[in-house]
Amino acid sequence: MHKRNNTINDRKEREILRSVSIHCTSCGKAHKLDEAIFRCDLCNEPLEIEEISNGRINKGNILTQTIWERYEDFYPFLDKNNRFTLGEGFTPLIEMKDLAYSIGISGLYMKNETQNPTWSFKDRGTAVGIMDAKRLGYKRIGTVSTGNMATSVAAYGAAAGMETFVFVSKDISEEKINPIAMYNPHLIKVEGNYGELYFESLKIGKENNIYFINSDVPMRVEGSKTIAYEICEQLNFQMPDYVIVPTSAGGNIRGIEKGFREFKSCGLIDNVPKIICAQSLGCSPIYNAYYNNSDAITRVEKPHTIAHAIENPYPPSGNQVLRLLKNNGGIATAVTDEEILKAQALMAKEGILGQPASSVPLAAIIKLKEEGFLKGNEKVVCIVTGSGLKYTASFAMHQLYSAECELNELSDYIKENY
Amino acid sequence: MHKRNNTINDRKEREILRSVSIHCTSCGKAHKLDEAIFRCDLCNEPLEIEEISNGRINKGNILTQTIWERYEDFYPFLDKNNRFTLGEGFTPLIEMKDLAYSIGISGLYMKNETQNPTWSFKDRGTAVGIMDAKRLGYKRIGTVSTGNMATSVAAYGAAAGMETFVFVSKDISEEKINPIAMYNPHLIKVEGNYGELYFESLKIGKENNIYFINSDVPMRVEGSKTIAYEICEQLNFQMPDYVIVPTSAGGNIRGIEKGFREFKSCGLIDNVPKIICAQSLGCSPIYNAYYNNSDAITRVEKPHTIAHAIENPYPPSGNQVLRLLKNNGGIATAVTDEEILKAQALMAKEGILGQPASSVPLAAIIKLKEEGFLKGNEKVVCIVTGSGLKYTASFAMHQLYSAECELNELSDYIKENY
Repeated sequence: MHKRNNTINDRKEREILRSVSIHCTSCGKAHKLDEAIFRCDLCNEPLEIEEISNGRINKGNILTQTIWERYEDFYPFLDKNNRFTLGEGFTPLIEMKDLAYSIGISGLYMKNETQNPTWSFKDRGTAVGIMDAKRLGYKRIGTVSTGNMATSVAAYGAAAGMETFVFVSKDISEEKINPIAMYNPHLIKVEGNYGELYFESLKIGKENNIYFINSDVPMRVEGSKTIAYEICEQLNFQMPDYVIVPTSAGGNIRGIEKGFREFKSCGLIDNVPKIICAQSLGCSPIYNAYYNNSDAITRVEKPHTIAHAIENPYPPSGNQVLRLLKNNGGIATAVTDEEILKAQALMAKEGILGQPASSVPLAAIIKLKEEGFLKGNEKVVCIVTGSGLKYTASFAMHQLYSAECELNELSDYIKENY
Repeated sequence: MHKRNNTINDRKEREILRSVSIHCTSCGKAHKLDEAIFRCDLCNEPLEIEEISNGRINKGNILTQTIWERYEDFYPFLDKNNRFTLGEGFTPLIEMKDLAYSIGISGLYMKNETQNPTWSFKDRGTAVGIMDAKRLGYKRIGTVSTGNMATSVAAYGAAAGMETFVFVSKDISEEKINPIAMYNPHLIKVEGNYGELYFESLKIGKENNIYFINSDVPMRVEGSKTIAYEICEQLNFQMPDYVIVPTSAGGNIRGIEKGFREFKSCGLIDNVPKIICAQSLGCSPIYNAYYNNSDAITRVEKPHTIAHAIENPYPPSGNQVLRLLKNNGGIATAVTDEEILKAQALMAKEGILGQPASSVPLAAIIKLKEEGFLKGNEKVVCIVTGSGLKYTASFAMHQLYSAECELNELSDYIKENY
């Protein structure tokens, strides 16, 4: 049987960990941070590390600084001497003036998370997960995913020299499995109820000393906080009215909301933006519960959407996202595949090519403006979660144009036609 | 016929442009920068803007600064009031200690250019090209490419609101054309000798007021300089021994070499690293000439390599790269497809998944170490030019592994097998 080293033999390190509390997002029960913990042992709801209220930005040259150094005050539980990075974060925030004008809102910004090491936001949470796993003495990490998270964990596990387990469903396509396999993890196609695998993997991890960095585990939430921190800096601490997050398991939206909350607690911003949870109507368990004014999500029976990256029929942080929206004053919304494709094309025409899930926020803005929820004087930030190259099959669903011409007629052809 | 606005009506602006010289890299003939110029009107060799020797880094917060602001001293010919960006540059430099150790060199760094807005280094040169085109009053830009450059120009042209022409060869595959078409340029499949199209496009551009941002035009070279600037900062101005650049047309390697040269002229670094031009043996016109001690490249008749992104049989800056290597003290080398695939897998196992062309530098290091050219005490930087997702067909050329298991047997399976 595989053993793990206990590297937390330093008394000071243990004291730091004990001074940071982690509690259940639902019942509030406190847990210990010096173990690999993922969900409340009482009510099985997600856990959250306490809010940082005395942090400062460690200003330095970003070309020689990692996000973990810049925001180190917000990660007292990470070992400063054993940081790990592949260069995640510090992604651009692009203002789209023309698009804002044509939609009829006062400001539109895209946080381009496709410019991460594995071309999605997942890398932030994966880095924190790896650092936490190393701190706890694990030599094995794992995840349950067929998409962005799988490639991220496979890449970071490989780079960190850890034995890396990726559980995918048995019917995964070649297009999806190959980019994961390239990083050479222990890649296991699992036959059976893939929906159960999230919870099963946490048990399997305990039995086999594998630290699972699944979608909404506390350390992944901690990683996503940096998206909010960066947005604050990029907007010179002048907050937008809304931040729209494509939402699947719920880890990313939780991290982003927590990041803004912490910066407010620290006095770095005056107010937090309202968070909008954006889903695809073909799989919108959080929106459904929000719409029905329910406190708990129910499983979507036959999920079907082009936005595969957010096609989670039973999001493990679904209930917590509902609680989060209530406290934050945000809302949930959902859009059709047709609206998603339209938004994907609109974004590409402004230079940013996201995967379908990444186009959900823009689709949501258009819908919310048409419905009158957005009045026109709002500033909105969209989270562009992953690269369009992640799901090239979506390109063929668009009306794409090209012309043909012989070389020696090309100049005349242009004169006549354009 | 399409007219272009002449926006350079400001006398001061014109004076700045006249004070910056541009000259032929071969015969030295001076040209005027206040026109769209691409090659020497005397000898048809590439042009180069004069070296900056009095620049300083404009240190600021990179989260709110563009590379064009940070290095503005090095771009006196760009209009400071009309900058354009999609968030290119500021890409990570990742040290790979384990890989350096196993190869037997003292330092190995990967400049990860896959973390650009269209996931390749091309975006830097495209941004400068767009700014130059706008400065000169052009409303139309274009390029000749079926790969990284095409998507980059299509994306940036769309974002800049310019009419954008992309010429591709008639037999381009769906996989290649779709990501370009998503940005909605005027996409024209050209029948005829695609090899001639580079030079033809410059004529067509003149006739139709289209500013062509082709592979090695002066402004593209100027864009690539920033790769060198960032490496200097990221290594705290302690230069590596070698920088290895996968080389096709020659624009990128020229820009990187010029960037180091300028920082040395400005006293920001003490010495410049030696530049290694790395090609694929299936299409290595520059290496062939270098190997034969020739001053001029000859066309490769039947190019064939997995590294499509650098498969240029007659690189327009080929002769200048030969001159550059002579002055710099660098060398040219070439590797087989088999060596490229091996390097691609090795890089992925360290967390960075490049397209085959991006794995050429690592393949070159391994070969140069085996041949004894590298002694073991060298520090080397590799330029990882584009994302592995750009050419997913290469994944299937690897031995990829996965296992299968039923959910209820998964824990036991892991105990027994790992």
